[in-house]
Amino acid sequence: MSYLEHYRNLPALITGGLGFIGSNLAHRLVALGARVTLIDNLLPDTGWHPANIADLRGRVRLVIGDIGDPETARAVVAGQAVIFNLAGSISHIDSMRQPLMDLEANARAHLVLLEAARQVQPDAVVVYAGTRQQYGAPQYLPVDEAHRNLPNDINGINKLAGEWYHRIYHRAYGMKTCSLRLTNTYGPRQLIRHPRQGFIGWFVRQAILGETITVYGDGQQRRDLVEITDVVDAFLRAGATDAAWGRVFNLGGEPATLLEIAQLCVALAGQGDVKLVPWPEERAKIDIGDVYCSYERAKNALGWRPKTPLRPGLMRMIDFYQRYGDIYLQTPDPAAAQTDGW
Amino acid sequence: MSYLEHYRNLPALITGGLGFIGSNLAHRLVALGARVTLIDNLLPDTGWHPANIADLRGRVRLVIGDIGDPETARAVVAGQAVIFNLAGSISHIDSMRQPLMDLEANARAHLVLLEAARQVQPDAVVVYAGTRQQYGAPQYLPVDEAHRNLPNDINGINKLAGEWYHRIYHRAYGMKTCSLRLTNTYGPRQLIRHPRQGFIGWFVRQAILGETITVYGDGQQRRDLVEITDVVDAFLRAGATDAAWGRVFNLGGEPATLLEIAQLCVALAGQGDVKLVPWPEERAKIDIGDVYCSYERAKNALGWRPKTPLRPGLMRMIDFYQRYGDIYLQTPDPAAAQTDGW
Repeated sequence: MSYLEHYRNLPALITGGLGFIGSNLAHRLVALGARVTLIDNLLPDTGWHPANIADLRGRVRLVIGDIGDPETARAVVAGQAVIFNLAGSISHIDSMRQPLMDLEANARAHLVLLEAARQVQPDAVVVYAGTRQQYGAPQYLPVDEAHRNLPNDINGINKLAGEWYHRIYHRAYGMKTCSLRLTNTYGPRQLIRHPRQGFIGWFVRQAILGETITVYGDGQQRRDLVEITDVVDAFLRAGATDAAWGRVFNLGGEPATLLEIAQLCVALAGQGDVKLVPWPEERAKIDIGDVYCSYERAKNALGWRPKTPLRPGLMRMIDFYQRYGDIYLQTPDPAAAQTDGW
Repeated sequence: MSYLEHYRNLPALITGGLGFIGSNLAHRLVALGARVTLIDNLLPDTGWHPANIADLRGRVRLVIGDIGDPETARAVVAGQAVIFNLAGSISHIDSMRQPLMDLEANARAHLVLLEAARQVQPDAVVVYAGTRQQYGAPQYLPVDEAHRNLPNDINGINKLAGEWYHRIYHRAYGMKTCSLRLTNTYGPRQLIRHPRQGFIGWFVRQAILGETITVYGDGQQRRDLVEITDVVDAFLRAGATDAAWGRVFNLGGEPATLLEIAQLCVALAGQGDVKLVPWPEERAKIDIGDVYCSYERAKNALGWRPKTPLRPGLMRMIDFYQRYGDIYLQTPDPAAAQTDGW
């Protein structure tokens, strides 16, 4: 049985289900015949959007609630075969401004979820969304999983703690947990309405609006971008691979400079331009230079590799926002994400 | 000016001030002429005891409250020149049984305290009590500060996060934070009423009661013990050394086997005996084999080294509990730790 067939009729939970990665994963799981439950707490300024799952109405179970609440967590994990644990906040800036919010979303809520799973569904597979942010400034490139964890902001610390809880629940209780450490994921359904969830959404936004993309410093900092289709594929593989339990895996891709990426956005959108500006102090404090990750371990253990080159990937994203940008430029209304009729 | 003279008339806060290390530090600071405030939240099963500070009445300010409460935290850090941040829970077993309690005490509360200090007292020196527990099972011995952080229980994860918050508040805001990673501290005023805060208190308790000390496995696991006087000295040095800011320092000492330590307790107490028993499953899961730490960095940067050999150190501890054991064998009454008359 292929890893894709594994999901037919499988009960699967996605935390952060209205977010960028969660909603794309939900579409794929529904297409594979899984019985999908989404939970999302609609945390302000994070990536949830009702539009992300509007076309899934009637095909998934939707819970608006917080996995940081033990009763809610127990209710949603009960009966699940796989839990894709994607809830959280990924904003480095927000984590410095609201460190307790970041701790709640990225550390405490996951501990509650794991406790709930241990209590009511200890045989569930749990795939956590880690981040290369926990490595901090690379000591060597590409960054592999043996690289030290030297987070350089509150978000990196809390994401690191969140991942470690998963590892300890495997080691102490034999739970079937693993973590994918994501690098710069991009694609349709990504947050583009503010610049605090990574640069790609913001670059794309400015390109489709015909604005000037500002790039800090000389723009030669390299990042590896992974298209959402490939990231979803990695989660599907991890959730269906027994050998993944207890392990962590980098995702990664071909590095490109921020200047190249910005210029490509402008070229593909057919508008906007690119300007280099000096580093703002608050960003400079937490910048980490070149970062790109080795995905050798994921290739060997999961059979995963990124398949989408940057140009067609960005083209697909820009095409999406040229069509739906009006919706995604607005701050979504929580009232539009209620579960009536689902 | 010596580091000891530095404390004369200095306003100093000790969080976890009724605990083992906090109360011993308080006695020393009072003797040095510091103006000492103690805060303690009387968290059940942790090391606080009213007897620990009974003779300080009238010589320190006492606050029964929680540094995890932002208003309380701001009130106690205001005006402090040094904050010895010792609050927390150190029980590995309790952290697995009550992981959210552990997260609150060891991670969230410290983030609240640091935010409070950043807001109202950003020039305060903050010395955090880290732990060698965050290293997990040693990959080499002695464990130095470059050793990977591979925590193997919830306590280790949360202590690690708590330390990292201090490091990031230095890096991002220039705050004068540092961390001492403690190994097995022992001495008077240590908790001896249950076995979940390290083995030494329990060994001493059984010896003074004439009971049988049970040692797991063959008893050949090595640990380095550091006597409380030496640990207090390390905190005093760290709090008075500008070169410590932003850094972490192991404490450490001469390694001895658990069997040797148990036999020494029995010999010094003049009663009890020692029995080897197989590992209980819950302990075996989180055991980390031999552990002892290099204190080269603390020696070079702080001029610190442990001065108390094991035998006289244990003798002093056993003598203390032979005199005051009746008090310390009982669970303390929170009502006895109120601030009336302080």
